[in-house]
Amino acid sequence: MAEAIFKRLCLIGIGLIGSSIALRARRDRLAETIVVQTRRKETLEKAKARNLGDVYTDSVAEAVKDADCVILCIPVGAFSQVGERMGPHLAKEAIVSDVGSVKRSVIDQLRPHLPDHVHLVPGHPIAGTEYSGPEAGFTTLFDERWCLLTPDAGADADAIQRLTAFWKALGSYVDVMEPDHHDRVLAVVSHIPHLIAYNIVGTASDLEEITQSEVIKFSASGFRDFTRIAASDPVMWRDVFLHNKDAVLEMLGRFSEDLSALQRAIRWGDGDLLFDHFTKTRAIRRGIIEAGQETDAPNFGRYTIED
Amino acid sequence: MAEAIFKRLCLIGIGLIGSSIALRARRDRLAETIVVQTRRKETLEKAKARNLGDVYTDSVAEAVKDADCVILCIPVGAFSQVGERMGPHLAKEAIVSDVGSVKRSVIDQLRPHLPDHVHLVPGHPIAGTEYSGPEAGFTTLFDERWCLLTPDAGADADAIQRLTAFWKALGSYVDVMEPDHHDRVLAVVSHIPHLIAYNIVGTASDLEEITQSEVIKFSASGFRDFTRIAASDPVMWRDVFLHNKDAVLEMLGRFSEDLSALQRAIRWGDGDLLFDHFTKTRAIRRGIIEAGQETDAPNFGRYTIED
Repeated sequence: MAEAIFKRLCLIGIGLIGSSIALRARRDRLAETIVVQTRRKETLEKAKARNLGDVYTDSVAEAVKDADCVILCIPVGAFSQVGERMGPHLAKEAIVSDVGSVKRSVIDQLRPHLPDHVHLVPGHPIAGTEYSGPEAGFTTLFDERWCLLTPDAGADADAIQRLTAFWKALGSYVDVMEPDHHDRVLAVVSHIPHLIAYNIVGTASDLEEITQSEVIKFSASGFRDFTRIAASDPVMWRDVFLHNKDAVLEMLGRFSEDLSALQRAIRWGDGDLLFDHFTKTRAIRRGIIEAGQETDAPNFGRYTIED
Repeated sequence: MAEAIFKRLCLIGIGLIGSSIALRARRDRLAETIVVQTRRKETLEKAKARNLGDVYTDSVAEAVKDADCVILCIPVGAFSQVGERMGPHLAKEAIVSDVGSVKRSVIDQLRPHLPDHVHLVPGHPIAGTEYSGPEAGFTTLFDERWCLLTPDAGADADAIQRLTAFWKALGSYVDVMEPDHHDRVLAVVSHIPHLIAYNIVGTASDLEEITQSEVIKFSASGFRDFTRIAASDPVMWRDVFLHNKDAVLEMLGRFSEDLSALQRAIRWGDGDLLFDHFTKTRAIRRGIIEAGQETDAPNFGRYTIED
């Protein structure tokens, strides 16, 4: 086994992502010591019960002390407050990173609170499930998924290098991206899909003449996949939308324009436009499967096919 | 083994649904003879290669002759034409059914061409995958999925009974529903989800500053599930939208209204509204899992979790 990448890894927040980092880092000894911090006593107890760390505390100041790497695994809305608390206690040359789904806001919230001697290298592992909390984590969550790092222009090359090695050891592919570009890419591949999934599930459950039980019984055809996405952590997603407002609103504008064109084609019976659109979208799916980012099993392998 | 339910089962069209019916009916001897009809020579050859039937023909007139049950497994846009061709050749007391995703239009298209002596009992198995064609079928497609029958007011009780027994033997639960109500329920649980999945995948692939390869690489977070739905058969879906226009446009209006409310909350920073909405939608997911219509494995079991 190689030498540990970090001496003291501090995880602020221990939900699905934090606990998955902890489990994998422990399994493969990527850090000599793992410090787990979380605000709620109950969550801290759950983390202890799963043996996620070596040290447990509810104090941010205590948690970050002497850590050579601090990773914030908390909703994007809490960064400013946590930054303020940890700033004065960060060790010299510490790497400060995170796993938030929005990157510009994270930088803007943290930067004012950080001493000059630390290295801010924000990160975003593009991995997750619809479950949340320290019980939801597992060691293979990041395998073959991308982790995007969005270091500031002045970020230390060695810090970027060490964090890259860490994410690769967690199983990820790593790419470096400019924070604003990250936020626009994620708005379209992640934030808007979540918003419209939450929306359609809401629309369906509000219909007067169609019962909830009908929606549930007959959900197999399309809707069911949306409900999975719409079961994701509400606090995390509320914060994503509030903190990536500009990119989300712009992409939502494009989405609505495009939807109007399809709506118009339906109203006027323009079958050719619909057919062309529905054909074009198949190519993207093939690309994702070929890139190893998806299974080609029908219906995600929900069925066992023995024919 | 019980007696076969039908003497001569005729399948008009042999795509994903038709071939799955054929495979299960053969396996469990639900029909003494299975007649497979399809327009394209190439598709008929594929059906033969998989041994889906006992008799193969490209002629609708020939196919339906002497059949006691005819099931149309073709896109909803082709019903009027096929109805005209088969009408004069249907056997006395034959059951005429289908598997189309829209039911009012199917009835309106078929009714004028059918002799009085046949029994029209339209059906809709709520099952499918993103794959199409006779290669895509498998015996377990209908297991524990719902099949909705939408018989006309004057439909023969014995015909409904036999078709119900057939779908149960294919593995389905069966429910009877009024055709217009069916079309409205399916508009919201199936047609609108497909439309917005097709739409967001189109929007993403049209962005100038974000490359196709970025969309593909970073698709894991939400978008990926939409691409599965947006890979469904374009002809089938074009016809669904053209033939369920009124219900689709109405539900799309509701969807857009609701989306505007979320958009407004994002613009004005109304986190409480977002949080409340995102919490409410979780209950629907739980209902679907409890009803046995979905797996509770994280990310549809895409991950192997050994922790």
